[in-house]
Amino acid sequence: MKRRNLIKALGAATVATTLSACKPKEQNCGTTQSSNKIHKWKMVTAWPKNFPALGTGANFLAEKITTMSGGRITVSVYGGGELVPPLEVFDAVSAGTAQMGHAGSYYWKGKVPEAQFFGAVPFGMNAQEMNAWLYHGGGLELWTQLYSKHNLVPFPVGQTGVQMGGWFNKEIYSMADIQGLVMRIPGLGGEVFKRAGGSPKLLPGSELFTSLQTGNIDATEWVGPYNDLAFGFYQAAKYYYYPGWHEPTACLEGIVNKEAYDALEDDLKEIIKTACMSANQNMLSDFTAKNKTALDTLINKHNVQLRQYPKEVLEEFKKHAQIVFDEVGNTSKMGKRIYNSYKTFATQTKSWLDISEKAYFEAR
Amino acid sequence: MKRRNLIKALGAATVATTLSACKPKEQNCGTTQSSNKIHKWKMVTAWPKNFPALGTGANFLAEKITTMSGGRITVSVYGGGELVPPLEVFDAVSAGTAQMGHAGSYYWKGKVPEAQFFGAVPFGMNAQEMNAWLYHGGGLELWTQLYSKHNLVPFPVGQTGVQMGGWFNKEIYSMADIQGLVMRIPGLGGEVFKRAGGSPKLLPGSELFTSLQTGNIDATEWVGPYNDLAFGFYQAAKYYYYPGWHEPTACLEGIVNKEAYDALEDDLKEIIKTACMSANQNMLSDFTAKNKTALDTLINKHNVQLRQYPKEVLEEFKKHAQIVFDEVGNTSKMGKRIYNSYKTFATQTKSWLDISEKAYFEAR
Repeated sequence: MKRRNLIKALGAATVATTLSACKPKEQNCGTTQSSNKIHKWKMVTAWPKNFPALGTGANFLAEKITTMSGGRITVSVYGGGELVPPLEVFDAVSAGTAQMGHAGSYYWKGKVPEAQFFGAVPFGMNAQEMNAWLYHGGGLELWTQLYSKHNLVPFPVGQTGVQMGGWFNKEIYSMADIQGLVMRIPGLGGEVFKRAGGSPKLLPGSELFTSLQTGNIDATEWVGPYNDLAFGFYQAAKYYYYPGWHEPTACLEGIVNKEAYDALEDDLKEIIKTACMSANQNMLSDFTAKNKTALDTLINKHNVQLRQYPKEVLEEFKKHAQIVFDEVGNTSKMGKRIYNSYKTFATQTKSWLDISEKAYFEAR
Repeated sequence: MKRRNLIKALGAATVATTLSACKPKEQNCGTTQSSNKIHKWKMVTAWPKNFPALGTGANFLAEKITTMSGGRITVSVYGGGELVPPLEVFDAVSAGTAQMGHAGSYYWKGKVPEAQFFGAVPFGMNAQEMNAWLYHGGGLELWTQLYSKHNLVPFPVGQTGVQMGGWFNKEIYSMADIQGLVMRIPGLGGEVFKRAGGSPKLLPGSELFTSLQTGNIDATEWVGPYNDLAFGFYQAAKYYYYPGWHEPTACLEGIVNKEAYDALEDDLKEIIKTACMSANQNMLSDFTAKNKTALDTLINKHNVQLRQYPKEVLEEFKKHAQIVFDEVGNTSKMGKRIYNSYKTFATQTKSWLDISEKAYFEAR
């Protein structure tokens, strides 16, 4: 696409105040290569506006971009449903309705099954491992390639860390308690849950509390204490299970409309990329800092009962997780490449983390 | 200090090509607030130039700053000894000989004992916890306050993750094997090692191999497989111990001369801050991705013997670690504040990580 057409195509999003760039050596003009265009971007998200860690994480990202660019890009953040529904973020950014989005890649499993590898893999990599794969193990290159045909540029923007296993109205003693249970659990975790006899549903966060309270679902997972407290799940369910076998981390995604991204000057591209990387770091830190006090509040103030999944149940989920993982890795040629890369990397880092992080947890 | 004097004080480092900023609405001029000054910065480091993860991490940071600022800040990286010796980074940046530095805060224990809390605490927080404390638990605010009187602005730039326990020429069966052992081990870990009967030394990385080979030291720790392979320690010692109880992570530091930092426009300050945050994320990912294959090379190609510290030894180190931690927390009023903040946060996150990361490691 030619420059003129491209700018036209982006419409109001890119306001070219002038096309004649400053000549570096003019007395009263910039000495750098940055041009003068102002990019007015919208960021649509899958979360309620300002929702703890997720919504505020999106705000953090938007502010970084706006401040670092000295206002050459301004990013306005929209909560789920404000501009488009939470589960239509992918399509909206792909079509250019918004220039950016913040969501989770496993929400698009119906459209892009391979995207689930970049969200959360049951019994897969934790946050540290996932980031290592994405940034230094070829993961992000594969993700970029996968999203390219959907007119999107993806970036990891936020790891949750190991999540909680979910909210239940009854205790889980054995696999018998899983049979027929209707639970909100997305992505590969949901598929594993189904194979194990449960009945998974995908609902956006904003609908969970009511669904749980009305009995539309029997159980739900969401993220962890900090987020779950904010949604008030303790008012609708009593038992809170760990660990989150289905999401050893959820890697959230920042997606950018490819044409909008390609139209940026080099320094602004780097600003987008780096802002995403810092927002990725920031969110895991936010969750880690807040989860403990939120958990204390849930237990001490709201009488939530903390429970560990029985070994038998975890082992059964793990068995199905392996099968589901292998199957998704065989759905397409691209899926196979991502699967192989993920699997090799995960095996290697697991054996490293076994003698570093895990051995240390056991020693301290 | 007045603007003119400040620029003079910074000398050649800040070249003001013109003091008259662009007026936003002029036809051929920038529409943003960024000014036209070019800041030529030097970054001195405590590592050999381009050393894996550490030196390349410093390069990553410099490139981010240069690219995001569109060249308004250019950062040239110097290896340890090129401009100043590795262990003089703090003084050089403080004095303005260089505008930035990359090192470890525990190297300055003789000068600023409280700085050790921001480097590595034996049996303390791991990388995930440390980042959470720094970014969302008040840690970085305390660090900033502590360094302020040294004319420095600190940022976390690189977590190593749980390190290896070190290289030994003999096996460690009990505390008897620690008595009188001369080991390179810096910071609080060194102090713990001393209390337990060992003889700690602080040497820069570049001197370790020769010291180990000549018998100047009996043992050394450095970082982990990726770095240790690069230094060739396997040629001078046979036994490689885990886990790194003394450094559950080393948080490396990016330090900026305070006057140089304060002289920056707001967008450039944000660029420095965000570049540091992304470089912090990047380094842990780099280490995590590379350590396993490096460990395989050490074991399979160089016949290194992997050993786990005996429980008895770890328990004894832990006992002394608690005492040393409490003592350093009592050296000054500021030390007490940092100690209290660290301790409260560490206790909380540990109990959260016990049911998230640790419980997950045990389940998978």
